[in-house]
Amino acid sequence: MPLREKALIARIRRAAAKGASNRAAFGIGDDCALLRVPPAQDLLVTTDFSLEGIHFRRDWHPPESVGHRCLARGLSDIAAMGGKPRAALLSLAVPAKLPQSWVDRFFRGLLRLGDRFGVSLLGGDTSQSKAGVLADIVVLGTVPLGKAFLRSGARPGDRIYVTGELGAASATLNLLFSGRDLRAADYRAHFYPEPRIAVAGFLREKHLASAMIDLSDGLSTDLAHICEESGVGAQVRSETIPKGSIGKSRQEIDLGFALDGGEDYELLFCSPRSKRVPRRIAGVKVTEIGVITREQRLRLQRNEKTFTLKPQGWEHFKR
Amino acid sequence: MPLREKALIARIRRAAAKGASNRAAFGIGDDCALLRVPPAQDLLVTTDFSLEGIHFRRDWHPPESVGHRCLARGLSDIAAMGGKPRAALLSLAVPAKLPQSWVDRFFRGLLRLGDRFGVSLLGGDTSQSKAGVLADIVVLGTVPLGKAFLRSGARPGDRIYVTGELGAASATLNLLFSGRDLRAADYRAHFYPEPRIAVAGFLREKHLASAMIDLSDGLSTDLAHICEESGVGAQVRSETIPKGSIGKSRQEIDLGFALDGGEDYELLFCSPRSKRVPRRIAGVKVTEIGVITREQRLRLQRNEKTFTLKPQGWEHFKR
Repeated sequence: MPLREKALIARIRRAAAKGASNRAAFGIGDDCALLRVPPAQDLLVTTDFSLEGIHFRRDWHPPESVGHRCLARGLSDIAAMGGKPRAALLSLAVPAKLPQSWVDRFFRGLLRLGDRFGVSLLGGDTSQSKAGVLADIVVLGTVPLGKAFLRSGARPGDRIYVTGELGAASATLNLLFSGRDLRAADYRAHFYPEPRIAVAGFLREKHLASAMIDLSDGLSTDLAHICEESGVGAQVRSETIPKGSIGKSRQEIDLGFALDGGEDYELLFCSPRSKRVPRRIAGVKVTEIGVITREQRLRLQRNEKTFTLKPQGWEHFKR
Repeated sequence: MPLREKALIARIRRAAAKGASNRAAFGIGDDCALLRVPPAQDLLVTTDFSLEGIHFRRDWHPPESVGHRCLARGLSDIAAMGGKPRAALLSLAVPAKLPQSWVDRFFRGLLRLGDRFGVSLLGGDTSQSKAGVLADIVVLGTVPLGKAFLRSGARPGDRIYVTGELGAASATLNLLFSGRDLRAADYRAHFYPEPRIAVAGFLREKHLASAMIDLSDGLSTDLAHICEESGVGAQVRSETIPKGSIGKSRQEIDLGFALDGGEDYELLFCSPRSKRVPRRIAGVKVTEIGVITREQRLRLQRNEKTFTLKPQGWEHFKR
């Protein structure tokens, strides 16, 4: 093992030791991480790349933001299934010349977020990279047996809801592409997205959602995923979509970002008409934006007119 | 989502549908994979990179071999803990111009190995790559509660054993570096290593091992890991180390490869003196190669002389 990798593993060990303590889980120093799943719980597992040049750029994103976003992607997937995150593993490959301080700050961002949700780092893999920083996060979570939210549960007549506000993450990315130098603190939706674990837990405990997904690919695409898996369609009212705001002046973003921009990590869920969904859950705004239809099409109502809503797909940094 | 990624996800879905059926696990199409861990079992999780240019080369390794080795790394980690593999997730990033046939053949190699061990592919992540094929495999396994083999259990007086033969994988790599064009079928230890799941299961059921590790970094390095975690030393007799053989003529490899070469994916385990360890387990040769010592050093006995055995570390394709 090259010295560089030894140093990385030592760093992961120290990081893990500092992380949230988790007596039902250990593993760094052995070939596998070991986790004790509580009785009557299903295990949730998700894995997500964070690749330099595809998901982040070192000249745009502070290392803390890269670490935060890396883990947030996985936590948000656990939230989407109504789960409680338990532990994480990290595969990390770095170029030989990467400053150690970059790695330290990356871990600081990742572990700070992990601590807040009681998620410790159980291990992973390290390697050299010939092509920038390559990370793959694995997040493990649990959910009561048979109670996970799936994408396939939406039924005609169900109301469609989203948490928080949409589009700020991709509007920020747009500014970065235009060459603007941004203060991360004024653009937190992009640099430090907040996984909606508490909202998801509330929805599960109160049996409020029939289907759920996290908004990682954008509203138009993720709603299409729900409709496809559920064999239904949807009609969304454009005036009701909660648009995010960015910058120090909190400027409201354009509708296009809210409809098609990815990486918001808010939740989109469906709820039977008979359920009363609070307008605020765990401090987060919840907005009704439309209804599930029998006709298998996505439609957008705007100024009394109805348009086809086309899933635009989210291509990260590919332009 | 770019078309390329859609095609990849569709490929993973089809691959998963073809894979070993696993009624306690599903997930492709949702944000997380879901796995039901049987009662009274601990969960094992491992994650391993397979990066082009670091762990494999497209001009050296047939795609089936890359897929096989990718999953074999994870399965071998599960074996090292005495576990039974249950499911896998794959993060896969590919360059825009990679032929679809390469991806298909990669999956063929991966799934063929998975089928043999009842491991289905539950999901994962896909991305574009600007830097060759990047894969990260996650393997999930289970082991009876509290019965996982750890690296920390070796005690002075324990005998040291290895499965199979060592060094053929790295001796093959050496030939590849020298420019030789090799027929994969004659160099299976390198191109199609065999994870020792059945041997590990037998050792666990019969309570034969005090500590175990898989030989991914090489004997000298992996034995050092055991000693470090257990706070002990080891003495190995060089004459007893089972050396692999390669090529059509089955030429025996040099001792150096057996001592320091990585990626054999055989098991190294320790067993208390009082235990009777069979010379063959599940059809695989098992060889006693030395003894655990109180003195915290690694020593190699050779021709009546004793040398210090230095962990050489395994640097994959870095030369």
